[in-house]
Amino acid sequence: MINQLTANIKKTGAPIVVGLDPMLDYVPEHIRGKAFEEYGETLEGAAEAIWQFNKEIVDHTFDLIPAVKPQIAMYEQFGIPGLAAFKKTVDYCKEKGLVVIGDVKRGDIGSTSAAYAAGHLGHVQVGSKSYAPFDEDFATVNPYLGSDGVNPFLKVCKEEKKGIFVLVKTSNPSSGEFQDRLVDGKPLYELVGEKVAAWGEELMGEDYSYVGAVVGATYPEMGKILRRIMPKAYILVPGYGAQGGKGKDLVHFFNEDGLGAIVNSSRGIIAAYKQEKYAKYGEKAFAEASRAAVEDMAGDIRGALG
Amino acid sequence: MINQLTANIKKTGAPIVVGLDPMLDYVPEHIRGKAFEEYGETLEGAAEAIWQFNKEIVDHTFDLIPAVKPQIAMYEQFGIPGLAAFKKTVDYCKEKGLVVIGDVKRGDIGSTSAAYAAGHLGHVQVGSKSYAPFDEDFATVNPYLGSDGVNPFLKVCKEEKKGIFVLVKTSNPSSGEFQDRLVDGKPLYELVGEKVAAWGEELMGEDYSYVGAVVGATYPEMGKILRRIMPKAYILVPGYGAQGGKGKDLVHFFNEDGLGAIVNSSRGIIAAYKQEKYAKYGEKAFAEASRAAVEDMAGDIRGALG
Repeated sequence: MINQLTANIKKTGAPIVVGLDPMLDYVPEHIRGKAFEEYGETLEGAAEAIWQFNKEIVDHTFDLIPAVKPQIAMYEQFGIPGLAAFKKTVDYCKEKGLVVIGDVKRGDIGSTSAAYAAGHLGHVQVGSKSYAPFDEDFATVNPYLGSDGVNPFLKVCKEEKKGIFVLVKTSNPSSGEFQDRLVDGKPLYELVGEKVAAWGEELMGEDYSYVGAVVGATYPEMGKILRRIMPKAYILVPGYGAQGGKGKDLVHFFNEDGLGAIVNSSRGIIAAYKQEKYAKYGEKAFAEASRAAVEDMAGDIRGALG
Repeated sequence: MINQLTANIKKTGAPIVVGLDPMLDYVPEHIRGKAFEEYGETLEGAAEAIWQFNKEIVDHTFDLIPAVKPQIAMYEQFGIPGLAAFKKTVDYCKEKGLVVIGDVKRGDIGSTSAAYAAGHLGHVQVGSKSYAPFDEDFATVNPYLGSDGVNPFLKVCKEEKKGIFVLVKTSNPSSGEFQDRLVDGKPLYELVGEKVAAWGEELMGEDYSYVGAVVGATYPEMGKILRRIMPKAYILVPGYGAQGGKGKDLVHFFNEDGLGAIVNSSRGIIAAYKQEKYAKYGEKAFAEASRAAVEDMAGDIRGALG
């Protein structure tokens, strides 16, 4: 899958990922109303609304982008129907040729971590049959529990040729509370970055490893250091756009081959029609606004990379 | 809910929680076979098997225990049907008067963390209606992303009078890789423990805070220190039994009032019938074996607490 991701990035010339993190109030009235008409103001109605919203955005952007990153929390908040909409979204994006990064940030130990890995990236056995329940291509993983939490994911990644992005330095303002604390003079995120590089050595694709890292666009200086520590890791970069990151901040997240990073934007793309800049599209053509925002974002990053 | 947890512990005299972490091969053949007959060897069949397994264990133990802790990964691995079985288990345990700790280890930032908090402990708004999708009483939370990740949970806990257990020092062998690293001469888990105490100050129940901590039974010396750092936090203690922790290791996790800790056992209770000690019950009476294992565990801990 890391080779597929690289191939998709080369094909589109756009190292970007669209974060499919739908909030109900991003969904235009005509879609929401129709879903509520059919299912009532229920969890099923909410799930149908976000699924239709996603579908239209994907239909309008899939030829421009290599990957999507649905944030499972936005679906999980609507319970079982919401999670069914997550699964539908994953399947649909894969049909469209997109690489799907499940932003699940799971992290546990031993058999529990193995269960998450099987459920999201691998297969589970039921009697004589085998199933791939969620079947994303990549998943995000929290490292706080150490190697015991990550190893079961590595095992599944090896079997399935899939990948993970390990949280190293997150984009939020308080990420430094623990991640920046100095351990023997070195911030914790560097130690985690070193682990990511080590975990990834055994799981190499053609040029990059199956084991990537999450490093926020909001911390470009740290990105520069982490790029050096993890030369073979793809860096998934959140925090572009709405969270304040700009194209020029991103240069050092990339390697000299122009690869090695993929930049996420969620709200900035999927709710583009709510921005003044794209207001001319109006609510009905919200997905065309998303397309324009993708084109602008790709242009911004291409410009910065030179 | 923290008051409810304390009340349940006082009523049962057993500061223990049963981890409902079913693996398919824990489920006796007569239950598995019946579920597969009805639903086939499908995800639905697996979900039905673990739900019937859980139900029988709960029916045989609920009067002896204050709380259960379903580990969502064990359900999530069976996709949507598995998560529906998780929800059924939560609801059923609450009907039986048990406090339900959702072992979800979620952790994200801002609106994403808010979505997890709403989905698991709070309510979501759909048009004019409001729903509590998973509705556990407590959830476990990963602190790696800092206060931005925890604050949305605190907000929901305040509104709903529910609680969280923050991962501080986990029970697994590699938990030290990051958690034990020294920051200004102090291990990271102590810094996290200090944060737990601070987060909990604003959210006090009668004697204990809504904000608890996870500290593994396998690290009793660290438990002693953390008990002092977080005097008002309930400590959820995994690692008893199968992971090697014993009653006598647990004494320092408790306060002098004999409260302040709740000890989890999963496999040791729910798959007790597979142990030589409880083999006499046989597969058919697996839930009676679980009841005997609960009684033994409660006795072991009572004995250690004196």
